[in-house]
Amino acid sequence: MKTSEKRRRAAKASRGGMLEPHGPDGRIGRVAAGLEARKLDALLVSAGPNVRYLSGFTGDNANLLVMPERTILFTDPRYQIQAAQEVACQVRIARGPLVMDVLAAIRRAGLRRIGYEPARMTCEAFESLKARLPMQATLEPVRGWIEELRMVKSAEEVERIRRSVQTNSRAFEQAAARVRAGMKESELAAELEYRMRRLGAEKPSFDTIVAGGARSALPHAQPTEARLEKGLVVVDMGALQDGYCSDMTRMLFLGRPDAKVKRAYKAVLEAQLAAIDSVRAGVGSAQVDRVARRVLKGYGLDQAFVHSTGHGLGLEIHEPPRLGKRDKTKLATGMAITIEPGVYLEGFGGIRIEDTVMVTDHGCEILTPTAKELRVI
Amino acid sequence: MKTSEKRRRAAKASRGGMLEPHGPDGRIGRVAAGLEARKLDALLVSAGPNVRYLSGFTGDNANLLVMPERTILFTDPRYQIQAAQEVACQVRIARGPLVMDVLAAIRRAGLRRIGYEPARMTCEAFESLKARLPMQATLEPVRGWIEELRMVKSAEEVERIRRSVQTNSRAFEQAAARVRAGMKESELAAELEYRMRRLGAEKPSFDTIVAGGARSALPHAQPTEARLEKGLVVVDMGALQDGYCSDMTRMLFLGRPDAKVKRAYKAVLEAQLAAIDSVRAGVGSAQVDRVARRVLKGYGLDQAFVHSTGHGLGLEIHEPPRLGKRDKTKLATGMAITIEPGVYLEGFGGIRIEDTVMVTDHGCEILTPTAKELRVI
Repeated sequence: MKTSEKRRRAAKASRGGMLEPHGPDGRIGRVAAGLEARKLDALLVSAGPNVRYLSGFTGDNANLLVMPERTILFTDPRYQIQAAQEVACQVRIARGPLVMDVLAAIRRAGLRRIGYEPARMTCEAFESLKARLPMQATLEPVRGWIEELRMVKSAEEVERIRRSVQTNSRAFEQAAARVRAGMKESELAAELEYRMRRLGAEKPSFDTIVAGGARSALPHAQPTEARLEKGLVVVDMGALQDGYCSDMTRMLFLGRPDAKVKRAYKAVLEAQLAAIDSVRAGVGSAQVDRVARRVLKGYGLDQAFVHSTGHGLGLEIHEPPRLGKRDKTKLATGMAITIEPGVYLEGFGGIRIEDTVMVTDHGCEILTPTAKELRVI
Repeated sequence: MKTSEKRRRAAKASRGGMLEPHGPDGRIGRVAAGLEARKLDALLVSAGPNVRYLSGFTGDNANLLVMPERTILFTDPRYQIQAAQEVACQVRIARGPLVMDVLAAIRRAGLRRIGYEPARMTCEAFESLKARLPMQATLEPVRGWIEELRMVKSAEEVERIRRSVQTNSRAFEQAAARVRAGMKESELAAELEYRMRRLGAEKPSFDTIVAGGARSALPHAQPTEARLEKGLVVVDMGALQDGYCSDMTRMLFLGRPDAKVKRAYKAVLEAQLAAIDSVRAGVGSAQVDRVARRVLKGYGLDQAFVHSTGHGLGLEIHEPPRLGKRDKTKLATGMAITIEPGVYLEGFGGIRIEDTVMVTDHGCEILTPTAKELRVI
């Protein structure tokens, strides 16, 4: 029997019951329709955000088995009621480890070639699955398929990101108005997060960064009990609202900035604006990164720019594409990305400016409404 | 050459420079000393909390390579300054993917048998490492070694958990005093999190659960815009403070509870107290779970208890042991665990009561100071 014939039969066997609705925006349908071209009988989706994207399920601990004509969501008894409310496809509640129920479904449907997500599955989960697979069934690595679908946002996703960005910027305005010397970094972070919560966010989309003085040179500084005093303060914050992320960095300055600060700020702002200017559908994401670096080089600051220029965001705070030297992605209309060059000088401090933007045919829409001048307090 | 001789030579080769300090509380030293018994030349630690536990490094994206006489932390340029401040062992800043620098170190030290953490490493990371390993070097799965060390807390860890629990309970008291009918679930969650932040927490240790009425029957309900009205409200919250977690569940009731609510509450409280009573060093964690289930069975409610009785916590909110039917762990002095039986009845609601406790030689210390009566508002 030819492999394609085996797949056809397996697909037929997997049909079993009636056809089922295929999740939000027909996303599961697109994956189901793409299985054959990838020579797969099924795709086992184990990454939480991918499960959510395809099925609408918002709980933890779930697997989704997408077959040509039907799809099963596996989760545990804690989510029994929730899954029934959220999900259109078939739901199976596992009494033990999900993998046993996934295996039972694989056996019942006679699946042969099953795709899995190597970037999202632990070695342990993989071994546990592999050790119990029926004879002749194989696990085939599928790299970044769902993540690629997720890069270009639907109209509804754009709306959610837009609301998340707005909540985030409003929370920043409300909290920034209360900043004064003597306030603790952790107090300002608490204020920012409280405000975004009150404005509709579920939580911050990542650990809020508030760092004063020389600590602003740590690109991922956690807020401490240190009190803000004269000098730079970096605020890097994002909201998670209706499941979607926003991301923004702004700089405050307590006191009067000197010429060195002003020059570094000017350099970063120029780099950020030039990078934004270079964004449009069809441009390589590495090209946007190069533009930012070139501007900083003109100021002799390119060595102080120690990360990439930006990243995609959506259900996760870091999604492809990465706007870095080595990335091969061509930007496309509907991608949501950050533009965030920065410079970090030990002892002096760090300066970063970041917006969330949507790629369009002829450029981009800057979603972040917050002013970009250095905010002197 | 015998394998043990090879290991000895590899260990000698890996020595290279001077001896280095071995992290907080000599934890790295304990692992280094245990390599030989496990027939390993090195352990590659990739789980963030395990890296933190051993080295003190609090950033993301790090690997730790523990060898008999020295240890290297690998991270990226964002954490260059932070790593130098936090870590006593050698630090290597990777310009590209960490794996390339890890491989270079493996080659330089001539390591043969390298332990890795299958439960914490993705298939992709594993394949990427394996594909570039020097000839004769092998990757050996090491299951739960560091997690096992982490189960029994040091005096300093106990202090941190204690402070986290206190912050959490104080935040609950402050916010619970403001609860009234008409308040949104999300508002109460925002209030709880703001208070814990102001009291010293870095963030919640997990997504705060606030669920009113029938939604309280979802064991992992996220707060919604729904307004609290007459009936049950479940609040499940934890703080993360100085890196350590707390976890507590309390029930509020708006209005006057009827006989059915009172009876179910009594059943859960009795189950929780009986389970706590059964905790002491030497007792199996499954035994504690059985005790809780037995009490609920007496009320005909055992089928409504859909999760395990508790879990360890520390740097992570869920750590071994799991207090469930199948767990084989014997409780030991110094373990921090939750005790949290609950019952969930669709349409009626859910009731759960949860404390964080420390196992002692003759019983346990209940860290959570919050009163356990149903809080009628």
